[in-house]
Amino acid sequence: MSAPVTISIDAMGGDHAPGIVVEGVHLAHVRLPHVRYVLFGDSSRIEPLLDRWSDLRGVCTVRHTEDEVSGDAKPSQVLRTGRRSSMWLAVDAVARGETAGVVSAGNTGALMAVSKFVLRTLPGIDRPAIAAMFPTERGETLMLDMGANVDCNANNLIEFAVMGEVFARNVLGLEQPSIGLLNVGSEDLKGNDAVRAAANALRGSHLPIRFHGFVEGNDIAAGTVDVVVTDGFTGNIALKTAEGTVKLYSTYMKEAFKSSFLAKIGYLLARQAIGKVKARTDPRRYNGAMFLGLNGIAVKSHGGTDAFGFANAIGVAVDLVTHGYNDRIRGEFEALKAEEAEMTQRAAGG
Amino acid sequence: MSAPVTISIDAMGGDHAPGIVVEGVHLAHVRLPHVRYVLFGDSSRIEPLLDRWSDLRGVCTVRHTEDEVSGDAKPSQVLRTGRRSSMWLAVDAVARGETAGVVSAGNTGALMAVSKFVLRTLPGIDRPAIAAMFPTERGETLMLDMGANVDCNANNLIEFAVMGEVFARNVLGLEQPSIGLLNVGSEDLKGNDAVRAAANALRGSHLPIRFHGFVEGNDIAAGTVDVVVTDGFTGNIALKTAEGTVKLYSTYMKEAFKSSFLAKIGYLLARQAIGKVKARTDPRRYNGAMFLGLNGIAVKSHGGTDAFGFANAIGVAVDLVTHGYNDRIRGEFEALKAEEAEMTQRAAGG
Repeated sequence: MSAPVTISIDAMGGDHAPGIVVEGVHLAHVRLPHVRYVLFGDSSRIEPLLDRWSDLRGVCTVRHTEDEVSGDAKPSQVLRTGRRSSMWLAVDAVARGETAGVVSAGNTGALMAVSKFVLRTLPGIDRPAIAAMFPTERGETLMLDMGANVDCNANNLIEFAVMGEVFARNVLGLEQPSIGLLNVGSEDLKGNDAVRAAANALRGSHLPIRFHGFVEGNDIAAGTVDVVVTDGFTGNIALKTAEGTVKLYSTYMKEAFKSSFLAKIGYLLARQAIGKVKARTDPRRYNGAMFLGLNGIAVKSHGGTDAFGFANAIGVAVDLVTHGYNDRIRGEFEALKAEEAEMTQRAAGG
Repeated sequence: MSAPVTISIDAMGGDHAPGIVVEGVHLAHVRLPHVRYVLFGDSSRIEPLLDRWSDLRGVCTVRHTEDEVSGDAKPSQVLRTGRRSSMWLAVDAVARGETAGVVSAGNTGALMAVSKFVLRTLPGIDRPAIAAMFPTERGETLMLDMGANVDCNANNLIEFAVMGEVFARNVLGLEQPSIGLLNVGSEDLKGNDAVRAAANALRGSHLPIRFHGFVEGNDIAAGTVDVVVTDGFTGNIALKTAEGTVKLYSTYMKEAFKSSFLAKIGYLLARQAIGKVKARTDPRRYNGAMFLGLNGIAVKSHGGTDAFGFANAIGVAVDLVTHGYNDRIRGEFEALKAEEAEMTQRAAGG
């Protein structure tokens, strides 16, 4: 039996809150009966939903909040005036140790700003990153950063590589995960200064990292490496380009299956099999972007997802908690800093 | 009847040269009987191929070259020592006015370097860009830069927008093409300095451009705009991510159709319709990346393509020639510079 885990839920975040949020908690509860929840939000809207999903009464506590963060609020504004919002208080519960992690489908920029401010970054980490899983030809690949840091230098990329490696080893359970740096070509001379400098450092380092070298855009879906590292600008665009391409392909398939009588019959016969493809590429299945590098677990659900997608985001947060990701990464960065200090001392001592 | 057009072919460029190159010319000849070719390369290898595709004898001239550019040669090295290569001489024929454009499946970096050196950029254009067509939900979208410029400032992006707009209007025949800047969000404050500054300039400018604003990765396949403008790093990764995603989706489909007896029968019935989807997303169909902004037409074919793909790249070059793209873009940039000068003068005159 799993040890109990308590998760903060920002019940007011996302396009269809609090309805799909509470329904998502219900779906998660069916899968993960050992998890408890603290729901932050407007209790007059949450309570009727708990009447509907009455199995949740025993595992949910409602914490009434007056305020909520709107989808278009600027992060800086939320930092100044958002302290009584459901999002802020849900994150704050993690900082105070009341809950082990937070899930929100609210404004991404605000959630990152509040999480950074309230939880702080882990010692030795300059910038947290957003990480997400991608389906690939070989299984699944972790990719980071997906949009937290638009401009990244080589050091940021190296930190992302370490955070991704620790995740792949501890949460995905891979023994020696391979790490690739996303670039426009696999040759050493390709790319911008940041990726070239990061690659040189990762090649030469004493880090216990299996650095594959550069990977290209097509390597993401091919599953060439277990962890793809990139800046937040490129990562965000790659993720959304892949989502758009899946949508385009499935539109083409739909049109094709309607294009002739034989194709329609063929569709009816193969429908179940085709449904499996849809399920494998369903963005809801990969919902739940992880904010890595913070002193606490925070997971961002897509704002437009449904209950199924929100439940998956809860599953991601529970996974991070259960595998003690943050303790692992803290230990890893402490070892790194100690090694750096020793090398500096050795260099100084001649 | 179309006026005759002569195209230079680098017969030694690409993974399967000169075999698929000459076969590609043969396929292009069937579709475009008015086009003539000058084939640059090792005549002892080209002549036997012309015996095989004997219909080409009347439309091809062979220009023997001793040297060829290898796939992994550095551009700087090719600039120093590659003047007798098939690639260089094929480009040089455009500069001398012997041919109207060049197609090569060789080393991209070398082809860009040689094209820039031999053809020069058009007046007023700082950096040429690589442009390619993408299939979308609404038809097709032009995207640039696909990899010529890893680092781009706002001015480069503005030039790409102008080059893309002229292409969409004159070659694609769109009346008022819409232009979008690729970014991590559609709000004004999102993104890095270059995209924000470029967006401000495009919004405020007197350019006859229908600027849509920012678009995101999923807007590429959605066909939200007619022209997507981005830096070469992001563009290259988006293109390859989309290609990888199509491959992944079709692997999933293949597996699904093999997963049950009913699915297999369904596949047999729908096979023809499914073949159409494959054709619509076939990268060979979109083969032929255009080097825009040069004083001459140059088109890069994928190095690993087959004859069908190479023939499409020839079609792209012929399209650019037929629509007088370079004259249009030259006129457009001259008007731009005149407007700029007038504004400067007006500002100076008080």
